[in-house]
Order: sequence, then C-alpha cells, then structure tokens
Amino acid sequence: MTDTEKMLRNIDDNLDLSIAKLLELIAIPSISSDPESAADILRAAAWLFQELVSIGFESEIIETAGHPVVLARAGGTGKAGRLLFYGHYDVQPIGERAQWSHAPFSPELVEEDGKTRFYGRGASDSKSQLWTFIEALRAWKAVKGDFPAEIVILLEGEEESGSASLPAFIDAHREALACDVAFICDAEMWSPTEPAITTRLKGLVHERVTVATPNPELHSGLFGAVAANPIRILAAILAGLHDDAGRITIEGFYDGVEDIPAGLRADWRELSRQTALFDEVDLAGGIIEEGYTTLEAMWGRPTIDINGVTGGNQGPGERSVLPATATARLSFRLVPGQDPDRIRARFRSHVEARVPKGCSVSFHGDGGNSAVALAEDSPYLAASRRGLETEWQQPTRLIGSGGAIPLVQLFKDMLGAECVVIGFILSGDAIHAPDEHYDVERVLRGARSWVHILKELEKLQKSTAAKI
Amino acid sequence: MTDTEKMLRNIDDNLDLSIAKLLELIAIPSISSDPESAADILRAAAWLFQELVSIGFESEIIETAGHPVVLARAGGTGKAGRLLFYGHYDVQPIGERAQWSHAPFSPELVEEDGKTRFYGRGASDSKSQLWTFIEALRAWKAVKGDFPAEIVILLEGEEESGSASLPAFIDAHREALACDVAFICDAEMWSPTEPAITTRLKGLVHERVTVATPNPELHSGLFGAVAANPIRILAAILAGLHDDAGRITIEGFYDGVEDIPAGLRADWRELSRQTALFDEVDLAGGIIEEGYTTLEAMWGRPTIDINGVTGGNQGPGERSVLPATATARLSFRLVPGQDPDRIRARFRSHVEARVPKGCSVSFHGDGGNSAVALAEDSPYLAASRRGLETEWQQPTRLIGSGGAIPLVQLFKDMLGAECVVIGFILSGDAIHAPDEHYDVERVLRGARSWVHILKELEKLQKSTAAKI
Repeated sequence: MTDTEKMLRNIDDNLDLSIAKLLELIAIPSISSDPESAADILRAAAWLFQELVSIGFESEIIETAGHPVVLARAGGTGKAGRLLFYGHYDVQPIGERAQWSHAPFSPELVEEDGKTRFYGRGASDSKSQLWTFIEALRAWKAVKGDFPAEIVILLEGEEESGSASLPAFIDAHREALACDVAFICDAEMWSPTEPAITTRLKGLVHERVTVATPNPELHSGLFGAVAANPIRILAAILAGLHDDAGRITIEGFYDGVEDIPAGLRADWRELSRQTALFDEVDLAGGIIEEGYTTLEAMWGRPTIDINGVTGGNQGPGERSVLPATATARLSFRLVPGQDPDRIRARFRSHVEARVPKGCSVSFHGDGGNSAVALAEDSPYLAASRRGLETEWQQPTRLIGSGGAIPLVQLFKDMLGAECVVIGFILSGDAIHAPDEHYDVERVLRGARSWVHILKELEKLQKSTAAKI
Repeated sequence: MTDTEKMLRNIDDNLDLSIAKLLELIAIPSISSDPESAADILRAAAWLFQELVSIGFESEIIETAGHPVVLARAGGTGKAGRLLFYGHYDVQPIGERAQWSHAPFSPELVEEDGKTRFYGRGASDSKSQLWTFIEALRAWKAVKGDFPAEIVILLEGEEESGSASLPAFIDAHREALACDVAFICDAEMWSPTEPAITTRLKGLVHERVTVATPNPELHSGLFGAVAANPIRILAAILAGLHDDAGRITIEGFYDGVEDIPAGLRADWRELSRQTALFDEVDLAGGIIEEGYTTLEAMWGRPTIDINGVTGGNQGPGERSVLPATATARLSFRLVPGQDPDRIRARFRSHVEARVPKGCSVSFHGDGGNSAVALAEDSPYLAASRRGLETEWQQPTRLIGSGGAIPLVQLFKDMLGAECVVIGFILSGDAIHAPDEHYDVERVLRGARSWVHILKELEKLQKSTAAKI
C-alpha cells in the first residue's frame, strides 16, 4: 500500500469521528453579523484552535477589530512549497426560524435521497469546507509523521459580514502569511459528481437605505391623500433601478466594466448546455440582462439585489398608518473594473436625486470588495485540477461565481500570492437560506481531494526542483 | 341657577374623578386586531358595563362573532326623542414601541404647551370621545334625576379592525337600536377652538398582498442575476399604482365615483384658506392628485395607501439573500359611488396581471365599507350645530374626513336612522401613530358640548310637539 493509499484509508476509517466533530462545530451559532453572537464566535474559534493543536499545528487565536482569526502553522519536510489554506468559521444569520424545518444549530445525520445529510446554518457554507483540508492534513501527518510542506491555516470569523478586519490583519501578519499559493476553500463544485475551480469571483457591496418623511407616523386615512408615504417613495426608487432590458439605470454603474473574455464566454456557453445547476432552482419570473446567457449573467455581469425591505405596519393586525420611514437593504455584485466605493457613491447620488424635497434619506454601509479574475494557466491551478480529477474521475471545470470571497483580492494584492479557489458546495445546499445542508460523502471526498492535490503539488515542486 | 347651569357645574366639579376614570380605561390595551388582546378587550367592555350600570343604565355585554358590544339603555321622561350614542372602545395596535416616548398604556397627566395632556393608544381615538357623552348623561341624570330622552348607548369593540360583526349585531337588535337620531362620537374638530360636524366620510378596504417566487430563499450572490426577486416584483407593482398626475392606475378604479358637489367644494375651498390643520403636519414630498386642493383630496377623492411592506432580511446584520416572498399591506379610501368588493377585485386583477408567470401572488382581506355622504339640512344637524356653538362660541364647520366610520352607513341602511357625526379629535393628536394624546380641557368641553346639544334637542322636540 502506497502512502497515498494509506492516507486515503486513514480518512475513510476516521469518517465517523470526523463527522461527529464537524457536527459539534456546526452546532455553534457563530453568526458574525449579529452582535449577540460574539460569545459563540469565540467558542467556534476556540474549538478550531484545539483541533489544530491536537493534530500538530502551532495555533493562535488572534483578536482583530472585529472577530478573531485562528492562525495555525506547521513546518514540513515535504517539497510542496509553502501552502496557505483559508476557510471561514462564521455563518450567515438564520433568517426566519419558522422557515426552517430542521433546527439551524442542532445538526443530526438524516438518510435522504440516497445521501446521509446534515442540516444547519454553516453546514455547507463554510464549516464543512474548512473541515475537508483540516482532515486531509490530519491524515497526512498521521501516516507520514510530518506535513508535505510548510503549512499556514487561516480561519476567518467575519467573512459573512464583509471581512472588514482582514486587510489590517493581513498587513500585520505578512510574514506569517507569506506563501507560494493560497487555497481558498469556500466555493462550489460544478455538479454533485464534477469538481470545479472558481477563477472569477464577483465583488460585493452591502448598502442600507432609509427614506424618511418630515412627519412622525400619521393616520393614513386622514393624511394619505396629501402627505408623503416613504414606502411609495422607496418602491419607486427600487422599481426604477433596472430598465426594461434588465440593465441597471444608475449613471456610471457600468463605467470601466470589462467585457467577459471571448474564450471564457465560449467555455461558459459550453457549460450552459450541460448544467444541472437549475434542477433545484426555478428561474421563472427572473429577469436576465438582455444579451447575456444565464451563466454569463451569473458569473460575468454586475447586479443589484434587494435583500430586504421594511416599512410601516409589520402586523399582526391591519393598521391605517402612514409610516415615517421605509428601509431597503441592497447588495451590489461587481465585476472586474468596478470600484466598491465608486459604486456606493453613484448609488447614493442616484437615490438622493429621487427623494422628494422635504423628505430625507440616510445610508448605512461602507467598505466592500472588488471582483477578482484569477489566472487560468498557472502550474498550481493545473496541479489542483489533476488532483481533483484523480478523486472525482471527471474533468475539473473552470467556473465563475456570483458569490464574493473578499480575501482573494487581498491575498493577491497584499501577499502577492497565487490563489486557487476550490470547494465542494452545491447549488442545492441552500446556503444563506433556510434548511442549509450538506452530506457526509462530500466531506469524505473533499478531504480525499485535498490529499490528491497535495500529492500533485509535491510532484510539481519536485519537477521544479529537478529543473533548477 | 338653571338646570343647564347645574349640569355644567356638575361636570366641572366632577372633572378630576372623571379624568381618573378615563385614564383607567385608556390603560386597558384593547387592541381589536391583535388576537392576543382578546382578554383586554373583554376587560374594557366589562369596565364600561359597570360605569354605565352605575349611572343608571340597563346594560349588557353582548357577544358577537368578533368582539363584544356593550349595549346600554335607559328610559327618559324628557322630550328629546329616542337617541342613540355610538362610540368604540377598541384601539389600533401601537406599532413599534421604540417610537413612543410615553408608555402606550400607562397614561398620566402631563403639563405641556399650556395643556394638561395624557398620552396613550386610544387616548384620542376613541376612548375620550365616548367618555364625553357618558359624562354628560351622568351629569344630566345627577341633576334632573332622569335622562332627557330614551337613550341607547352602543359601544363597539372592533371599529379599528373593520367592524366585521356589526351588521349581524344590528340586524339581531334592530328593535333595541331603533332611534330618531344616532350620534356617532368618533370624529374631529376643525381646530382647537372651532367645533365641527363631519358630513362626508370615506369608505375603507384593507388588503394584504404577498408575492412569492417558485423557490425558497436563495443566495443572492449566486442567483440574484437570474432568479426572480419578489421585492423587485412587489416594488414595481407598488410604484405603478399611481401615474405622474397622482391618479390611480387600476382599471375601473374611478368607475362610478361621484364628483364632489360644487357647493361643498366651494365651502372646502373657503376652509382651506383658514386651516391650521397643517401646522403639525408637513406635506413636503406628498403627491396630491392633479386638479384638486388639499382638502378636496383628503375629503373627496379616493386613495390607495401603502401601510406596510416586509420582505427578506429584517436585520440586524446584512444577509445576501434572495427572499422567497414579499408582502405589502394596503388600504383603499373610497368615496361615494365606489363598492368595496369591486375595488378589491379590481386591485387583485391589476396585481395578478403584473406578477410574472411562474411566480405567484396571494391576497388576504375581505369586507370593507363604502363612503357616506350625510344630509346637511336636517333639524338634528342644525340643533347639534347650535349646541356646539353655545359651548365653543365659534361657528360649527361642516367638514369631510379621510377616516372611515363603517357604522354610519349601517345605521342609515339598517335602522333608517339619521346620523350626526361629532367628535373632538384634533389632527395633532397622533391618532394611529406613536405618542397618541389628548387633553383634559377637551374632555371637559366635550362633555359640556353634549349637555348643550341635548338641550337643543329638547327644544327641537318641544317645537315639533307644539306644531302637531
């Protein structure tokens, strides 16, 4: 039995224990955007710290202005260079509890559709993701007594709320984080049987806008015919953000937007023909920007999404009220060429110009991140591709994503590191939604994938070394 | 000292006790539209029952399919005919508690702006209103040992949620409710020093609409560019309800609408010149239907008001979600010629035609009431007018209202009774809004007004009797 076979066997044999531990982690409600979850964020960080120590990493929990980072390091006698693995242990809010049919933070194994599933916020995004590389590294160390390379593990606690503290953290730890390649493990597979590497990621800007009238709440019967209604004003603004062709109407919104490269466009059109992506998602009623295919719109075109709206009577009874304020929460998904600050400023000007005189508008939000287009011709990417193919026995697709991973651009800019974005999320996992779930098989095969990738990286280093 | 002077003196002398009792009533959170308030509704009914018994009424608490009615009757040796007094003891929901700077259900006397005020939901609308006629009748009985006429008092418990049980109640109690004139005490003064009688009331239809996409919640980054967003669909529908001239775009909405009579229009234009109505309300940003003055729009033109909207992320953190549903709560204020059921049906067709195929829409709401235009030349109205003028020493204005009093049409139709709508609410009372309030002086002068009105009614009956 080769070492590789022993490592894979070790992962297979350890599966029950590995899953039991993962469910412990998912049970911790580490919601980074909710101030009331601060203690749980710390619990999750401490839990990961202990796991990493137990498999031989020098680990630290490092405070930031936001939530702490878990940073773990180990030397290695192997030849795969210096590798960084990134994951995030924070999760999205659960939304409305009543919409979940499983408890969001009490995961259990459920046999369903031929899978052994578990439900919970963070089950897919992203606790199972970071667990795959931790489990692979554990197995490697168990079999070989050492790691294949110098390893840095960075586990973030505020990815789901915008990674605001990360730039300062990276800046303060440039030396510790220096690496040849950073693996960002928080992304999708192409299908349940086909692996993928994500090479294009959208940028993300969150923004909250509140329209206020000059009055407190009024009786809508008495004053509805004559006084301003902030919901009516807000609805007009929201409805006017797109034209009939599905294009965004904000002046200058598309300034600097780079067109999707022709080669990528051709690849994506090819993928469009064979996607199972929409087996679980119904696009009825969706408006796709004119001139683009579904995948092009998803991966290559900027969007505005309305994530929430609130104003006036929220029930349970009816109330004849003219509200004083109405609020919308929006997010912008950016493509290469768009600057988060400039987009936010243009949106605010657009809205301000549409709020009637005498009424007022306030905005909440800052920061955000730009889109990323990664190299598609690097040896690290090629090695990762081969590693994935060894496990899945299917070609690895190069895909885009509408999701944002703020860290990728930071790593490129601040560490000069090459980034490879790999993950095992599926579009049917209900991430950010009620009943988020994952399955045991993907935990197993994810961990096994990382063993194959590490093996390919070793070969790569050897051949590079041989050339010198 | 005449009997009238004795009665007024009695009211003046009893003021502290009367106010103390009224504050007890306001402290009961009798929110008719909230199922959790059922016990408080009953408490309020029982409290009123006991008060009415204590001043000599035969009283009953009568269950309905909704909330109970308090019905009280007394014979009278006076000559003022058979009189019915109507009030409602239920209140609107409080909305968001944080927007109140006074506790909604713990009223206390506060010296403010030269007034002795008290704050609370129902302080103005309508517990102080019903209290004025109860206090006047108490004083009359105390001085004269009897009432000036046969009196019927009807206190309703679901006015603020649409009076759904009232038609059946009236039908079942036609004999007990038979009267020469019904005084509906739930309306506004023209200004803090000028009394009014309301002769035109709008109808009211409440409606809730929920747009749903074919999917559960989705990740807005992944699917926002291609899948339906129910908030975007709803915003477009809400924004499209009015055209640029402020007219409602629903097909057939204005069918049958009677134009405001020329005489009334002239009177209202005259009143427009001297209104203090907007000293406390700022119309900036409001859109008044083209071709109409402010008072004409308020009192004589139908409206759609958006009372609430809810969808997707409600906070506290940001969440990249594509919601599954979005809901708006609307109310329609109708004028003579519009039928509630027909308006609701036309609205639903309008919305259904604007929801994309594959998405769905559901509606919640039924019933509603039509607008009312009352006679402006009746002897009861003339007598009431004189009574008010005796107390306030100012002309009584005939006004309209955007508010609805469903009962008026029912009384006209089912009992054939003449209705006179009188009240002492001011536009600055913040009814249906946070920090609703009222003042002691208006409780006092309201009660005194009813003594003068009863006196005028006695004269009226005497002169009628003399003629026969």
